[in-house]
Amino acid sequence: MSEPKSRGEFRGTRIPGRRRVLTGIKPTGDLHLGNYLGAIKPCIDSSRDSASEVILFCADWHGLTDKNRIFEPGTASIPCLAVFLCLGFQIEGNSLILQSDFPQIQENAWYLSCATAVGMLERAHAYKDAIANGKVPSAGLFYYPVLMASDIISFDSEVVPVGKDQAQHLEYASDMVKLFNNMVGADVYLEPKPLTQEETPLLVGVDGERKMSKSYGNTIPLFAPKKEIEKRAKEIKTDSKGLDDPKDPQTCAIFQILKSFGSPEAVAYMKERLEKGTGYGYGHAKKDFVDEHERVFGQKRELYEHYLKNPREMLEKIEPGFARAESYANASNSRAREALKLTSFRL
Amino acid sequence: MSEPKSRGEFRGTRIPGRRRVLTGIKPTGDLHLGNYLGAIKPCIDSSRDSASEVILFCADWHGLTDKNRIFEPGTASIPCLAVFLCLGFQIEGNSLILQSDFPQIQENAWYLSCATAVGMLERAHAYKDAIANGKVPSAGLFYYPVLMASDIISFDSEVVPVGKDQAQHLEYASDMVKLFNNMVGADVYLEPKPLTQEETPLLVGVDGERKMSKSYGNTIPLFAPKKEIEKRAKEIKTDSKGLDDPKDPQTCAIFQILKSFGSPEAVAYMKERLEKGTGYGYGHAKKDFVDEHERVFGQKRELYEHYLKNPREMLEKIEPGFARAESYANASNSRAREALKLTSFRL
Repeated sequence: MSEPKSRGEFRGTRIPGRRRVLTGIKPTGDLHLGNYLGAIKPCIDSSRDSASEVILFCADWHGLTDKNRIFEPGTASIPCLAVFLCLGFQIEGNSLILQSDFPQIQENAWYLSCATAVGMLERAHAYKDAIANGKVPSAGLFYYPVLMASDIISFDSEVVPVGKDQAQHLEYASDMVKLFNNMVGADVYLEPKPLTQEETPLLVGVDGERKMSKSYGNTIPLFAPKKEIEKRAKEIKTDSKGLDDPKDPQTCAIFQILKSFGSPEAVAYMKERLEKGTGYGYGHAKKDFVDEHERVFGQKRELYEHYLKNPREMLEKIEPGFARAESYANASNSRAREALKLTSFRL
Repeated sequence: MSEPKSRGEFRGTRIPGRRRVLTGIKPTGDLHLGNYLGAIKPCIDSSRDSASEVILFCADWHGLTDKNRIFEPGTASIPCLAVFLCLGFQIEGNSLILQSDFPQIQENAWYLSCATAVGMLERAHAYKDAIANGKVPSAGLFYYPVLMASDIISFDSEVVPVGKDQAQHLEYASDMVKLFNNMVGADVYLEPKPLTQEETPLLVGVDGERKMSKSYGNTIPLFAPKKEIEKRAKEIKTDSKGLDDPKDPQTCAIFQILKSFGSPEAVAYMKERLEKGTGYGYGHAKKDFVDEHERVFGQKRELYEHYLKNPREMLEKIEPGFARAESYANASNSRAREALKLTSFRL
């Protein structure tokens, strides 16, 4: 058996003093303000925190487990990462990557799977839910927790922000690491720790009732031409208070949605005007809403469209983080191969 | 969806007039005459057949599904391929490769798994057998048929020689190809055809009773020093006929084992002497046996030991076939990614 190396030695070119955080995002088109509040902004904030090294990966391989949307991961993946870049993800020292660019993940997944009892996968919540919902599960869906564990360990991630629904998968990842390391008798993969996230406040949709979600068709897009935002803003449901009536910001969907992205000034201004009421109807609030949306996202939308037309420019920005992530994935892969004593003709 | 290309166009740099045959071999140490007769010789003969292009791969990843022998695939894989090379596998126009050198296989396996119902894997004979034998199956063992199908389709293999025990796995591979191609609406993977092998005559072991097999400890090694072969030959069980008695070659294990590798002349000579009997006892037969073994395998054993000490020399011989296999694996992988519309930052 190969001599296990000390932790410090083999964990890639870690950036001193920074904790490596892995966040995955589903590749999906038409990101909206609900995504912004729940997933995008926390990740961008984290990328700007000097104590963290963020690897944000777009999980295009995972997306393939949904047969009904088999082509969505491919078409949405680059736009999805472009959104983060345009909205201020700090690319220096962090990484924006596509899962499917890392074959090391599939290879590490195989190694984990050889140490993992099949019964563990049968007991996965997400898999049991799929069956309970009458789906014919694919082998990919069944194998999903292994691939997810491999996403994490392939980059020697230290912490993974997880919501409640992913907690079991992260426990699985820890278990698989222990099982594999135990099987080979070496300290190959790093056991990840969950970073339990505060529950993100739900953002209400334009219907003023339900959570903003693509499936309810009640979203305000992040990046859409001003005309489209105006159209969507007009759909925001309000009560029937008149122009001069004092209005309650807490029950006003326009204000609630504005809070998810507006500047403190814009938020304070609308709050004051609504509460006072005089001469400030919902029409005015909607106009202010659209203006603030355009102010915050307008230029970024132009940059986003520029990147989609000139992906090379985006790639150049992303390249250093990509190379760093690649070095981590190669390192975890090599350690596994070494521990398993696998040889190679690629000399 | 990407325009499906015509078959001729995208099947890699096929060698004109040759049918691509894929054969996998388990990486196992101490190959013996039973392996030679059953697996090695047919494959070598096929490599010398100008109508075939043989890709022989050592299935080191598959070997990891046996937790009790987790380090065997790594240590046995290069010696295992060296055996083929030394025994006359024609490397020009054919390939000797290690499975674990091809991450494309794991990636294609993921694509297949997303098109494959999990129930199909639950019904796999080998998996059901493992459970019936009280094993705690690993996720890797469960996923095995997907990886095996991917071995085949990753190299656009046309035919796969299979014994009875692998027939279901090959049907699975065909089914997975149909399911995947149907899911993406393009002719991505090539459906393999089974080449049902004639039942290999079983070779008897030195106990004169059971099949020669490592697990019975009744083998004659392929490559071992003459002294070791002499020792093993002495163990071959015979009846108690005397020096001058006529002896029946059909029931004589020495003769039966000799037939598996001896030259027609050596075989004819021993047959004649045994039948005649006079002055030719089993001791003489054993001596002739050892001499013929040394004549056939002695020089090859020296070459084998040379290669193990100088793997670079072996790699140089193997390189063109490796590069060709790599081009096939890249082609199958690219077609899948294109059909799924996956994008990449590796530009």
